[in-house]
Amino acid sequence: MSKIVVIHGPNLNMLGIREPAIYGADTLASIEKRLTELAKSLDIQVEFYQSNHEGAIIDRIQACYGAVDGIVINPGAFTHYSYGIRDAFSSISVPFVEIHLSNIHKREEFRQNSVTASIAVGQISGFGAYSYELGLLAIHRHVQGNGTHE
Amino acid sequence: MSKIVVIHGPNLNMLGIREPAIYGADTLASIEKRLTELAKSLDIQVEFYQSNHEGAIIDRIQACYGAVDGIVINPGAFTHYSYGIRDAFSSISVPFVEIHLSNIHKREEFRQNSVTASIAVGQISGFGAYSYELGLLAIHRHVQGNGTHE
Amino acid sequence: MSKIVVIHGPNLNMLGIREPAIYGADTLASIEKRLTELAKSLDIQVEFYQSNHEGAIIDRIQACYGAVDGIVINPGAFTHYSYGIRDAFSSISVPFVEIHLSNIHKREEFRQNSVTASIAVGQISGFGAYSYELGLLAIHRHVQGNGTHE
Amino acid sequence: MSKIVVIHGPNLNMLGIREPAIYGADTLASIEKRLTELAKSLDIQVEFYQSNHEGAIIDRIQACYGAVDGIVINPGAFTHYSYGIRDAFSSISVPFVEIHLSNIHKREEFRQNSVTASIAVGQISGFGAYSYELGLLAIHRHVQGNGTHE
Amino acid sequence: MSKIVVIHGPNLNMLGIREPAIYGADTLASIEKRLTELAKSLDIQVEFYQSNHEGAIIDRIQACYGAVDGIVINPGAFTHYSYGIRDAFSSISVPFVEIHLSNIHKREEFRQNSVTASIAVGQISGFGAYSYELGLLAIHRHVQGNGTHE
Amino acid sequence: MSKIVVIHGPNLNMLGIREPAIYGADTLASIEKRLTELAKSLDIQVEFYQSNHEGAIIDRIQACYGAVDGIVINPGAFTHYSYGIRDAFSSISVPFVEIHLSNIHKREEFRQNSVTASIAVGQISGFGAYSYELGLLAIHRHVQGNGTHE
Amino acid sequence: MSKIVVIHGPNLNMLGIREPAIYGADTLASIEKRLTELAKSLDIQVEFYQSNHEGAIIDRIQACYGAVDGIVINPGAFTHYSYGIRDAFSSISVPFVEIHLSNIHKREEFRQNSVTASIAVGQISGFGAYSYELGLLAIHRHVQGNGTHE
Amino acid sequence: MSKIVVIHGPNLNMLGIREPAIYGADTLASIEKRLTELAKSLDIQVEFYQSNHEGAIIDRIQACYGAVDGIVINPGAFTHYSYGIRDAFSSISVPFVEIHLSNIHKREEFRQNSVTASIAVGQISGFGAYSYELGLLAIHRHVQGNGTHE
Amino acid sequence: MSKIVVIHGPNLNMLGIREPAIYGADTLASIEKRLTELAKSLDIQVEFYQSNHEGAIIDRIQACYGAVDGIVINPGAFTHYSYGIRDAFSSISVPFVEIHLSNIHKREEFRQNSVTASIAVGQISGFGAYSYELGLLAIHRHVQGNGTHE
Amino acid sequence: MSKIVVIHGPNLNMLGIREPAIYGADTLASIEKRLTELAKSLDIQVEFYQSNHEGAIIDRIQACYGAVDGIVINPGAFTHYSYGIRDAFSSISVPFVEIHLSNIHKREEFRQNSVTASIAVGQISGFGAYSYELGLLAIHRHVQGNGTHE
Amino acid sequence: MSKIVVIHGPNLNMLGIREPAIYGADTLASIEKRLTELAKSLDIQVEFYQSNHEGAIIDRIQACYGAVDGIVINPGAFTHYSYGIRDAFSSISVPFVEIHLSNIHKREEFRQNSVTASIAVGQISGFGAYSYELGLLAIHRHVQGNGTHE
Amino acid sequence: MSKIVVIHGPNLNMLGIREPAIYGADTLASIEKRLTELAKSLDIQVEFYQSNHEGAIIDRIQACYGAVDGIVINPGAFTHYSYGIRDAFSSISVPFVEIHLSNIHKREEFRQNSVTASIAVGQISGFGAYSYELGLLAIHRHVQGNGTHE
Repeated sequence: MSKIVVIHGPNLNMLGIREPAIYGADTLASIEKRLTELAKSLDIQVEFYQSNHEGAIIDRIQACYGAVDGIVINPGAFTHYSYGIRDAFSSISVPFVEIHLSNIHKREEFRQNSVTASIAVGQISGFGAYSYELGLLAIHRHVQGNGTHE
Repeated sequence: MSKIVVIHGPNLNMLGIREPAIYGADTLASIEKRLTELAKSLDIQVEFYQSNHEGAIIDRIQACYGAVDGIVINPGAFTHYSYGIRDAFSSISVPFVEIHLSNIHKREEFRQNSVTASIAVGQISGFGAYSYELGLLAIHRHVQGNGTHE
Repeated sequence: MSKIVVIHGPNLNMLGIREPAIYGADTLASIEKRLTELAKSLDIQVEFYQSNHEGAIIDRIQACYGAVDGIVINPGAFTHYSYGIRDAFSSISVPFVEIHLSNIHKREEFRQNSVTASIAVGQISGFGAYSYELGLLAIHRHVQGNGTHE
Repeated sequence: MSKIVVIHGPNLNMLGIREPAIYGADTLASIEKRLTELAKSLDIQVEFYQSNHEGAIIDRIQACYGAVDGIVINPGAFTHYSYGIRDAFSSISVPFVEIHLSNIHKREEFRQNSVTASIAVGQISGFGAYSYELGLLAIHRHVQGNGTHE
Repeated sequence: MSKIVVIHGPNLNMLGIREPAIYGADTLASIEKRLTELAKSLDIQVEFYQSNHEGAIIDRIQACYGAVDGIVINPGAFTHYSYGIRDAFSSISVPFVEIHLSNIHKREEFRQNSVTASIAVGQISGFGAYSYELGLLAIHRHVQGNGTHE
Repeated sequence: MSKIVVIHGPNLNMLGIREPAIYGADTLASIEKRLTELAKSLDIQVEFYQSNHEGAIIDRIQACYGAVDGIVINPGAFTHYSYGIRDAFSSISVPFVEIHLSNIHKREEFRQNSVTASIAVGQISGFGAYSYELGLLAIHRHVQGNGTHE
Repeated sequence: MSKIVVIHGPNLNMLGIREPAIYGADTLASIEKRLTELAKSLDIQVEFYQSNHEGAIIDRIQACYGAVDGIVINPGAFTHYSYGIRDAFSSISVPFVEIHLSNIHKREEFRQNSVTASIAVGQISGFGAYSYELGLLAIHRHVQGNGTHE
Repeated sequence: MSKIVVIHGPNLNMLGIREPAIYGADTLASIEKRLTELAKSLDIQVEFYQSNHEGAIIDRIQACYGAVDGIVINPGAFTHYSYGIRDAFSSISVPFVEIHLSNIHKREEFRQNSVTASIAVGQISGFGAYSYELGLLAIHRHVQGNGTHE
Repeated sequence: MSKIVVIHGPNLNMLGIREPAIYGADTLASIEKRLTELAKSLDIQVEFYQSNHEGAIIDRIQACYGAVDGIVINPGAFTHYSYGIRDAFSSISVPFVEIHLSNIHKREEFRQNSVTASIAVGQISGFGAYSYELGLLAIHRHVQGNGTHE
Repeated sequence: MSKIVVIHGPNLNMLGIREPAIYGADTLASIEKRLTELAKSLDIQVEFYQSNHEGAIIDRIQACYGAVDGIVINPGAFTHYSYGIRDAFSSISVPFVEIHLSNIHKREEFRQNSVTASIAVGQISGFGAYSYELGLLAIHRHVQGNGTHE
Repeated sequence: MSKIVVIHGPNLNMLGIREPAIYGADTLASIEKRLTELAKSLDIQVEFYQSNHEGAIIDRIQACYGAVDGIVINPGAFTHYSYGIRDAFSSISVPFVEIHLSNIHKREEFRQNSVTASIAVGQISGFGAYSYELGLLAIHRHVQGNGTHE
Repeated sequence: MSKIVVIHGPNLNMLGIREPAIYGADTLASIEKRLTELAKSLDIQVEFYQSNHEGAIIDRIQACYGAVDGIVINPGAFTHYSYGIRDAFSSISVPFVEIHLSNIHKREEFRQNSVTASIAVGQISGFGAYSYELGLLAIHRHVQGNGTHE
């Protein structure tokens, strides 16, 4: 039974409050509930983590080393500058999928650059909370070994 | 019963021949077979189209006007310069999802710019042939009205 | 009696459908009707051509060689990347005027670059369907020899 | 009966002297004579103003507030840097058309940038003195209300 | 009685020690004392917070949600790269004023770019410790409703 | 008793007319009235000057040499290109504060560059007409000698 | 006996008409005649293809898969933007030489960028029609296996 | 006997006051006195003009048309943006030499760009007030016909 | 007896695990052991600190104020964006040497920019774990006063 | 009987030693032997020169003035920065062909810029030692007068 | 009696041969003759040096250390890239004037950048061979101590 | 017993004369004396070479082929443009360390780019003459085989 960790970056704890016109009214709790159900249907184990602290997210990623099969991450604003998170992924060799709630190509120019995407398995953006579910499906397929699509 | 068109851009008819190290050994036929099955399970109707001609793809997109609920497109090399395809999407107001087989952020710099992504519902890249399946799930969810996530 | 060809680029066949907030509700047929009337009043012969295919437009431009006195073109999205159309104009030495329905300086940055404008007689943008009429007046004046204003 | 002001920017008083290879041998007086005749045929009232002083042109534009229906301006060299003239147009809400004698896309790169074009109704360039006449036709059509083509 | 939080970014706890030629010899304690007096004279309540940790500042900003009327922030070095702090402000909809001790336009080029300024009410820079007092006056005026100057 | 001159750049005489959504409905007269009152309370003498002519503003700045203690300037559109005004300030060695009504970081990109800010005492932007009052407070404090905060 | 295909891009059918000052007075027919003779002397088989349609050229390149030993291509204007042609070459693994009639380094800046050259065996430019003959010699040598010079 | 006009741009009337560390303590009067003596020794007639108004300098340049043999100009801050002054020189075809007191290559980056230098006979910078004398020698030599060194 | 602190940035705790092809198989413990020996031989006192948290590193640097003679830092990924760490060094005036395990000029472009190097004594990169030993020698020499080589 | 000089730039004396994976195992001697044979077959005289010294190459090019019919040059690393060599070619008016062993478009970005190509007859790159032979053919054809293909 | 060295960079020995349309028909000998006469009239001693070798010019500049009062240099093509010559000037502290025959602002863009100008006393360009004479006058004045105009 | 060559680029023979504020008062002789002592203590053989001529340095590097175990180079100004020296290193496959006296990140922007660093073992900058000693230690360690740290 494979194990997946889902990591939410800074300010995602405010989901449902922050700019609902862009991100929708879903809360993190309701998203995690749906992901738990999807995980059950896929027969995988899923854990969640959220932090506003870059260092804490790096610590959490390092803790996945040798303990986890794959990661789904919404790096939030860290997407655009955290080379520290990028290096954390490089140091553990656990595959991860990067997801975004909004279509980053429709937003401010700085949101269109990701410092982590080039070492991810792939990137999914624009489908609201459903981006998480697609991300879980994608990492699951990748981990199963059907996803050797590089 | 909603209707979705899947469009493959230039050179995707060579799939399974071209650079398998990057794109995998799947052929277009086997991908379309899996998509047809997924569509059946989702109770949607799916059609396929491939062309190496930009003008023919523009014609096909225009033909979707008033006739189709959503589009999944892998624009191939046209991703990077076909403002004509972009304008075709603008002219018909049918939602579409842009997908890529490879993780475009890992490849040549010119492959990281998409002239269509900013008017798509969202973008999925890096999951090989499975990107198509994720794309079909995503447009289906969007069309159902659960996906108002802009 | 001089002869002018008016060429419409990709997606202009969708006029009246596509983004009416930007381009107005005029159809291509109604525009061509007004241009025919204006041509009659100026005692010139006018022909029309529309295609979504870059190659077809290049063919049409080449066919003007030795057969036409001037061209009015709205290159649509090809404005921004078709060096093929640019070279077609260079190869035939027939003067042409480039027109745009919308004021391209108010729109996305990529719409402000034209690869053909520097070899045109001149450029007119921002007057909706009336841009075509101004373009016909301008090429007519140029062809009459009153327009040697380079 | 609508009222239009035609404004000539710096050095246009030298017309017929300055670089005739580029701008033609017309003088400002002969151009204004033809514009007066055209205005008569269109049943509109036209006034002219020329200055080499940016501040004087700003004052003249402000004086149009509540007094004029439209403006045709050839900003000359101010096209490329006078944000002051741009703001003057913003402050009065009178529609204007920007015209240029030469095809600015054929000339030095700095002449291809206009700081005022993005707030104009439209831009016409490359038809010599006839650019003024096209500009008068264009603003006239716009003022009549047939020109709501934004 | 309105409530304002004043947030000091990284290294501002070293004030009076660090580069006094640039920032002056004031300590954070003496600045906060003057701000408290000014707040009293304006009949507003003021609180202070300093941290060298980006995540801690994000947490503090989030805690202002629904609890505070306005924020004055000197983001220090985070000004130039913390999209996380930017998003924190977006998520809480509390107005804030960004201030800087030194005139950032006189210093290194990287100090002239602020990733938060475009979502602030306004920015004040160059008046030493007095920038804080001007910032408090400005947010106070804004909160009073006299400052709807966007 | 110190003496301050407040200078308004081009088009600010149109205040209350021009783009009120951005600049507010205040007129220059009402702003100057409030500044006069504030000046009285601070026991300083204040004078005002407005011009649309860059040269006239340069002359006015030069006239401050040896006659004035400080200047508050809203350079309007000259902010972005008038090296002449910049040099005028350099030539007289009178301290000045640059202010802007709107938050220039929220507006067009060209409005975010100031050619004068790097030689000002400081810059204040985004507080509507109240920016002038903050500017007067700031230059007053600077002139008093409490503001040696470079 | 090896087989080579020579492909001419858009507007090369106009050779001898188009800008002879730059490209010479040779027609495509006379060039192909000389190439046929050269091929005979080298004991290789040669075929020719010209099109103004990008899609048709992609189709023709794909048809070379498993059927041809080498390709000489003058991509004309497609040189500068057709990533579709680039991908077609990648998909078939047939070596090709890119040639240009004029010295592209002497011409407009946009002509100096080739999107296909980095996957070609090599590039030859500036020798008029003789560039084709040098290209045929070069691909012949490469195919013979004496040309493993990467 | 040839006639030369020497034009001083904005703020040069402040010479001897403005940044003496950079420009020296010479006043405009003392410089003009030395130039008058040098002119006498060269048997040429010299006139002087200074203004802070761009428009006034354009007018003065136009007045040289047909009346003056050459111009020496120190455009001051207008060097960097006044396309209006550039066009004024183009319109009159009187040769001019551009001079600068300081070595512009040692100063702020914006001072290293001149919009007028490319149409001048030549440029001299860095020799303080003596730059004017070298400029007078240079234009004199050019006018004599010994200077046809373009 | 001088005192030196060696600071390791984010992910360096994973040394020996992370990308050994690039960084070698040394662990942080073995490196620190060798550094301790080297320090002993140089008769200096050495302390170590590692964190994945930018704020914690800033705190540690501030704690060096008045307590430490020099610092050797491998800022890891923070090298490229932490202006907060840069400002921390500015605020304490303790000399530091920046070191990197790999030759940053051979790696991704973003790794070639350091925001701290310009305020360091010097930079050493490319010698694996031995970079630390060279760094300790260098800061030791600098502190001894033989290293006043700026 | 025409006379051609073949010039080899810096480090080409190391051919066969240096990076054979890129440049092949040919030595300069073996290449020159083949060129001598080819020259004999073309009935032209050929001479060779190699130097690692830019100045020596400039001297050699100048010595061709009035003495040589054409030059083939592989400028090696000087391709990318030696404006001195460029000017030497300009000063002698002897036609030359620039060749490169490797396909410069496949290598580091700095290798794709040539400061001499724009004044050459043409450029050939990517065919290993055979590039020299193609270059000799090309300059021979050019010198014969069949090559007026500019 | 002061001593001046005049240094000519690469290809200037070809003067009178090379591109006379740009540089004039003067030879280096005739220029040096006029400079010798001018030097005599100024009562200074002058020496000349020309080389195509950067290293030789560096050697010659170093030899001026402690032996020469000033240098006039026309660095030719080395102007644009020889940081070695720049450093040679820095190492000897002898003042120098940089001159150019042609107006570098009228020529190719790469000719407008000088790597030595920012450490010269000043720069003179555009006056043909007379630029040398102006340069000699300028360095003479500077050496006399009347030219302390930095 | 391994053999190391130390190469000094242009102007380093002036050390102790040139800009001592930046480079210190050490002469090359005293530096080489210390290096000789250090080499003796490490039991390695060391040789020195200095030249102002790029070609001579290339010759010297080539002479190391098969004869030397490692190189320490301070390329001086050649660091920033000598692709010829870069290629010389590529052609011999002898490891080298690049050193700089001053911290190049504190100096002019052009000094921060090295064209050789990406093929060096590593780079050391900022420690004055001691940079050479650190460089000798580093190459020694690398040659010993303890330094396989790429």
